[in-house]
Amino acid sequence: MIRIAVDGMGGDYAPEVVVEGAVSAANDFAHLEIILVGQLDALKRELNKHKVLGGKIIVHPAAEVVGMGDSPVAALRKKKDSSIAVCIDLLKKKEVDAVMTAGNTGAAVAASALMLGPLPGIKRPGIAIGTPTLHGISVAMDVGANLNPSAEELVQYAVMADVYARCIFKKKRPSIALLNIGEEESKGTEVLKEAYKLLRDSPLNFVGNIEGRDFFTGKVDCIICDGFVGNVVLKMCESVLETSIGIISRELRKNPISMLGAWLCKPAMNAIRKETNYEEAGGAPLLGVNGTVIISHGISSARAIRNAIRVSGDIVSTQVNDQIIETIASIPALSNQRLEGKK
Amino acid sequence: MIRIAVDGMGGDYAPEVVVEGAVSAANDFAHLEIILVGQLDALKRELNKHKVLGGKIIVHPAAEVVGMGDSPVAALRKKKDSSIAVCIDLLKKKEVDAVMTAGNTGAAVAASALMLGPLPGIKRPGIAIGTPTLHGISVAMDVGANLNPSAEELVQYAVMADVYARCIFKKKRPSIALLNIGEEESKGTEVLKEAYKLLRDSPLNFVGNIEGRDFFTGKVDCIICDGFVGNVVLKMCESVLETSIGIISRELRKNPISMLGAWLCKPAMNAIRKETNYEEAGGAPLLGVNGTVIISHGISSARAIRNAIRVSGDIVSTQVNDQIIETIASIPALSNQRLEGKK
Repeated sequence: MIRIAVDGMGGDYAPEVVVEGAVSAANDFAHLEIILVGQLDALKRELNKHKVLGGKIIVHPAAEVVGMGDSPVAALRKKKDSSIAVCIDLLKKKEVDAVMTAGNTGAAVAASALMLGPLPGIKRPGIAIGTPTLHGISVAMDVGANLNPSAEELVQYAVMADVYARCIFKKKRPSIALLNIGEEESKGTEVLKEAYKLLRDSPLNFVGNIEGRDFFTGKVDCIICDGFVGNVVLKMCESVLETSIGIISRELRKNPISMLGAWLCKPAMNAIRKETNYEEAGGAPLLGVNGTVIISHGISSARAIRNAIRVSGDIVSTQVNDQIIETIASIPALSNQRLEGKK
Repeated sequence: MIRIAVDGMGGDYAPEVVVEGAVSAANDFAHLEIILVGQLDALKRELNKHKVLGGKIIVHPAAEVVGMGDSPVAALRKKKDSSIAVCIDLLKKKEVDAVMTAGNTGAAVAASALMLGPLPGIKRPGIAIGTPTLHGISVAMDVGANLNPSAEELVQYAVMADVYARCIFKKKRPSIALLNIGEEESKGTEVLKEAYKLLRDSPLNFVGNIEGRDFFTGKVDCIICDGFVGNVVLKMCESVLETSIGIISRELRKNPISMLGAWLCKPAMNAIRKETNYEEAGGAPLLGVNGTVIISHGISSARAIRNAIRVSGDIVSTQVNDQIIETIASIPALSNQRLEGKK
């Protein structure tokens, strides 16, 4: 049985939607047990609305809540008994195997970094995410934890994205690229030029730079970037198909023949919406910390919460963290030791 | 008559496609005169394929060509008689009113910055572009000239984007936002936090931060960002509708009813392709240099070249540069003097 602490108070629609998603995960996945963390009254009130299979969900108290707009570090300092801090503490004490939160991303990153510390050999954690493309799922990393990574940190993100793509998306030997403003080695910032050299000389399947236009096409399996551009691009991805469908629908309504056409296309459009829906992607792991932490979108639906909990379990069962440690250690040129020396 | 120097040798399909676009602009726009710069034999050979209205195109010699993959500064140093250097030199000597190139962007930016110098009060030039959104055109700046702008440079980009949106896209009082990873003032890098404060205290119509998801929605008229994220996002925009249509078409082909639907929708889809086509956007001006320089995509079609030449003329006739100088000078807090003192 894999035990997952769920931050019951985190997210724009917590606790209602989080509890609904947790119940759905508990009932659907036999190998998962949920520890729902938060204000007991609120959680129990929500739990009473659902049927839960025997013993699959237990509640654990946490008196305080970090708001979506709170300053992460200040909130963690002031609210020692917040649901996210309690979740991470349970993970640290090994009372659970993983944490899932849809709350304040900054607070989740800060709590994990401060309380769990890094995996051996890792300098800074980053957030990885599976994004739908024209040819299946690609992994993008970092998408918001580290706005100014060094070249060495980017290379470590490449290692972690490689492991994540292999374990969770079953890619055999993931192709890896840097997101840049041109394909040539000479393009981009000094940090990117240095990361290019380090990746080229690494045993990873590095294929060079890709430009923004290839983010959606699935040209590569792993896209490595800083947390700023990753976050901007990710949020574009989330809206872009909806926006495109919006433009298309508006145009189709302009005459009766294309309106009929649109009506005939509707089931196919709904299938696409489902296929490229971020609810199905199942959250984004914070990789590089000493524990399994999955961050889900603040506006996550119950289905998105359920899937993020499922992926948390998959990360534990496929031993992503052990593989990251092994891979980093097996590449002397990429491990902390050499990089520390270089800096 | 507005005289525009066209870099006849710049671009992936030069000189063929560039000459075709130049001829089309010369014939279609009575107020424009084209000075086609490059290797005379090649240009004349291409010109002979077309009919040109009397005296609307003259050719001007330049023996060398800066390749798309050349290192910009090295190429300018070695190839003194390159078509882009000769174009900018004609502009400097006021023998033309504007320059249009589809060649090596870095070389165009470097030649303009070095040979023309900045507009009074401007610290660094940036590239602005009109991008199609769900609600008309928005201006994004910078999209590739300055990968690490300071807060002050971002604010100057806001001023220039404001002028460009007013002059070319006829926006009355353009709304302006910073592209960031969250809407709160506290989000993003230190540079963005500082730029937020400067913009909030400026007379511009600053509406705060927007996230990646609002890039396409037309929520604001001007989107201000560094050249790295701007370039990545711009290239995503260029591909995104095509990719979405690709995903949609694949899904529609899965059954005969939706195939019929797709066939009925085809004219509407083609209308969208046209509406959101970058060929219509007409190139991207390098703003902040002492002269009018428009950069067009390396893969520009003849139609895109024609439209970029048209916009070059519009920038001259609406006196964009004079308005930038005036606006910068009218806002003491934004002008070079104070900013120099602050740094």
